[in-house]
Amino acid sequence: MLTDFVKSIPPEKEAMKAELKTEREKLANASMKIKGAKLPVMVIFEGWGAAGKGSVIASVIKNIDPRFFEVATTHAEPTVEEKRKPFLYRYFIEIPEAGQFKFFDTCWMREVTDGILDGTLSEQDYARRVQSINITERQLTDNGYLVMKFFFNISKKEQSKRLNALLADKNTKWRVNKDDIWENAHYKESQKVYDKYLSDTNRSTAPWYIIDAKDKEWAELQVLRFLNQGIDTALKNHSLAVPILQNAFPLKQMPLLKDIPLDKSLTDEEYKAELKLLQARLHDLHYKLYRKKIPVIIAYEGWDAAGKGGNIKRITGALDPRGYVVHPIASPEPHEKARHYLWRFWKRLPKTGHVAIFDRTWYGRVMVERLEGFCSENDWQRAYNEMNEFEKELYDWGAVIIKFWVQIDNQTQLQRFTDRQNTPEKQWKITDEDWRNREKWDLYEGAVNDMIQKTSTAFAPWHILESVDKKYARIKALRIVISELEKACKER
Amino acid sequence: MLTDFVKSIPPEKEAMKAELKTEREKLANASMKIKGAKLPVMVIFEGWGAAGKGSVIASVIKNIDPRFFEVATTHAEPTVEEKRKPFLYRYFIEIPEAGQFKFFDTCWMREVTDGILDGTLSEQDYARRVQSINITERQLTDNGYLVMKFFFNISKKEQSKRLNALLADKNTKWRVNKDDIWENAHYKESQKVYDKYLSDTNRSTAPWYIIDAKDKEWAELQVLRFLNQGIDTALKNHSLAVPILQNAFPLKQMPLLKDIPLDKSLTDEEYKAELKLLQARLHDLHYKLYRKKIPVIIAYEGWDAAGKGGNIKRITGALDPRGYVVHPIASPEPHEKARHYLWRFWKRLPKTGHVAIFDRTWYGRVMVERLEGFCSENDWQRAYNEMNEFEKELYDWGAVIIKFWVQIDNQTQLQRFTDRQNTPEKQWKITDEDWRNREKWDLYEGAVNDMIQKTSTAFAPWHILESVDKKYARIKALRIVISELEKACKER
Repeated sequence: MLTDFVKSIPPEKEAMKAELKTEREKLANASMKIKGAKLPVMVIFEGWGAAGKGSVIASVIKNIDPRFFEVATTHAEPTVEEKRKPFLYRYFIEIPEAGQFKFFDTCWMREVTDGILDGTLSEQDYARRVQSINITERQLTDNGYLVMKFFFNISKKEQSKRLNALLADKNTKWRVNKDDIWENAHYKESQKVYDKYLSDTNRSTAPWYIIDAKDKEWAELQVLRFLNQGIDTALKNHSLAVPILQNAFPLKQMPLLKDIPLDKSLTDEEYKAELKLLQARLHDLHYKLYRKKIPVIIAYEGWDAAGKGGNIKRITGALDPRGYVVHPIASPEPHEKARHYLWRFWKRLPKTGHVAIFDRTWYGRVMVERLEGFCSENDWQRAYNEMNEFEKELYDWGAVIIKFWVQIDNQTQLQRFTDRQNTPEKQWKITDEDWRNREKWDLYEGAVNDMIQKTSTAFAPWHILESVDKKYARIKALRIVISELEKACKER
Repeated sequence: MLTDFVKSIPPEKEAMKAELKTEREKLANASMKIKGAKLPVMVIFEGWGAAGKGSVIASVIKNIDPRFFEVATTHAEPTVEEKRKPFLYRYFIEIPEAGQFKFFDTCWMREVTDGILDGTLSEQDYARRVQSINITERQLTDNGYLVMKFFFNISKKEQSKRLNALLADKNTKWRVNKDDIWENAHYKESQKVYDKYLSDTNRSTAPWYIIDAKDKEWAELQVLRFLNQGIDTALKNHSLAVPILQNAFPLKQMPLLKDIPLDKSLTDEEYKAELKLLQARLHDLHYKLYRKKIPVIIAYEGWDAAGKGGNIKRITGALDPRGYVVHPIASPEPHEKARHYLWRFWKRLPKTGHVAIFDRTWYGRVMVERLEGFCSENDWQRAYNEMNEFEKELYDWGAVIIKFWVQIDNQTQLQRFTDRQNTPEKQWKITDEDWRNREKWDLYEGAVNDMIQKTSTAFAPWHILESVDKKYARIKALRIVISELEKACKER
């Protein structure tokens, strides 16, 4: 890529001044348009030390009203806390909201190329991170984000000249760090690594723009040209449906809901005895996975009144409260709705060694959001693959992912609803909305079947909990959780 | 990828039989649907020698009416003639037509990985080919193709067992070639190369499916499952507009047509003298580029009656007839319309050392096809980038690409039309359609401006030929051709 770079042709001095003026005005106007179109714009600056990224960012943002942009606060190095999350976590939580620019002075590229250069990242981990980055950039684009990536390129000689000039002045000396000096001394080696990364992540949905950064004004003009072009294109695409991707994950064959026998049950005695034994085992396992730093994600979906809450309690009852969180998921708040729909789940990911239990999940996208029209048809059709990719990302990070569908039949729900209605201390549990949803049972059943068929991947399949007898469902859940955690503890 | 492969879970023997039956029927039905939807389906089989690709292809096609599929006839090794074309040529000309399956028993992967394994392909050329392949697979998908890629995976031990079994029987012995034996002896080395290729070309628009090929029936079932899923998805996507890509190529700033002064002219004496000199130089250059094996593509577009034909004659007048072809481009024929719109131009690419002159070109997509509604808005909007990519591919191959826009003003066209109408021997040159097009002058002018602005890349910019004085335009064209060819001859 770098080597492949076709030389840029800067305009003459006067023409440059005139064009800079035009392009700056274009950007000022564009920022109103992206607000109107609710387009989120992620602008990533990477490149050589002392190539002038910071000063071009400073010039570019002067054209935008401060209400319409933010500069990301990501550090070059992840903190100790951040190291206990998936690699992308600290970047993904920074994505802009709809109608806003977010500028990144280095982003996920820097961490990856640094890892290669200082030898802390294996070839295999490099390949995995490149894959994660490519999937994430594509998912952002598919979900209506504009992702612009600039690489500021200068020669070894030019970099050396700039570093020396900075070092010579006591007011600017502090701006040169030892990484910059190392990079210049190992220019060729670094170039090879950057080159490879640029080519590995040069996808058509989020291509790299190599900026010839020898001259500051020309660098700014190149950035403005590409940024304005990119915004034009993104605004044109904004209302378009995105082609659905082919499924590329091995899937487990799953039964349809109607074919699942629901007559399984346990006696009270069986239940009590089993519960005690299993909770004790899970209790011990929890410490083991804490020591082995295995992150665990347990996802619950199911019919209203199927018994999710009670089921979750039997799991958490066995866990050390310092090591788990239950996330009840309601409809998204405005600041959540303004971002990629998985953003609020990224924010809630557990640290390594911890358990996160989701009471309702990201699968809302293909159930309630699908059926109530809270997202477009294209959005939910795309979501099966996006959620498989999301879970693959977590699986590759090392997470154990357990997904439960808590299943009851229509008649059982009616009984439980009626019981709730008629029992004063249970009345808070039943709302008009529950009754309205109930009327759409058949539609929901279709959506759930689609979901289970399309997202039972080999690495994160659905488990059905037959919950007409809640006791049976609780014991089955405990057994599955224990078996999955034991498997994971054995493998690490 | 291979290493990353999540183990497949085959169903039990009986369930497998039943599912095979269902999936085969699904495919039989699907082939009628793809006919109806005019969906072209490209199915690529790659994998280890003796992994059973051929026999699965044989089983799969049994479910499809012979009118609806073809098996590609590409050889493993390119012929001498094919080596004088761009790498992708011999594959691209084989793409299926709308409504048909085309099965490839190995395709572009094989040639690339073989090149790495036998040391004939440099790292840089590998990177370039991977890029070409990725762009091509994406372009095919964007243009409504379904591209399915299967890699048949078996272990070293399994491969060795199969090869030995084949060798032991005198009736099958011939099926084992020395490449298979080499591959088995260098399994690890080959695996690394395949792995890298699979990961380098695993794009979301055309993902790889790793087929666990240990058992023949299970391999077929996996192929059928993914193929049927892929067809379902493609049929859903078929009418969708595809998001336009951001421009990622450095562009040359170009004037608008209205700002181009057209008062340039030459006297007859100047013209004759120059013409003689320049044609003599071009004549010599032609042999030089033939010896240096440089392919040359000269593309002419321009207003009706602008003088394209006469201009081309002054170029060809200087060339050895054995070394050039002029391709007059009219509207596409049905078999051309049924394929990617660049297919008919791929078929007309010159050999190395030869000159192809196009009298009208692929840019018809963004002029007549745009304005007459012969393609969708999404199609022509996407085409600017697709044509830049096409030309970059040719440029990387080593071609010199010269694009001329032959410019006259509206008044000059009227004079020439009237003159044609009133001169019996010129009347064949003017049709009612010319007059109808003339009425749309302003629309065409807008389309031409868009085209020139968006496709004047640094590697293949447009050159304007001011042709109110045809003599001036001819001399200018000769000068540009000579200068570009001299530059190219000097560089090689």
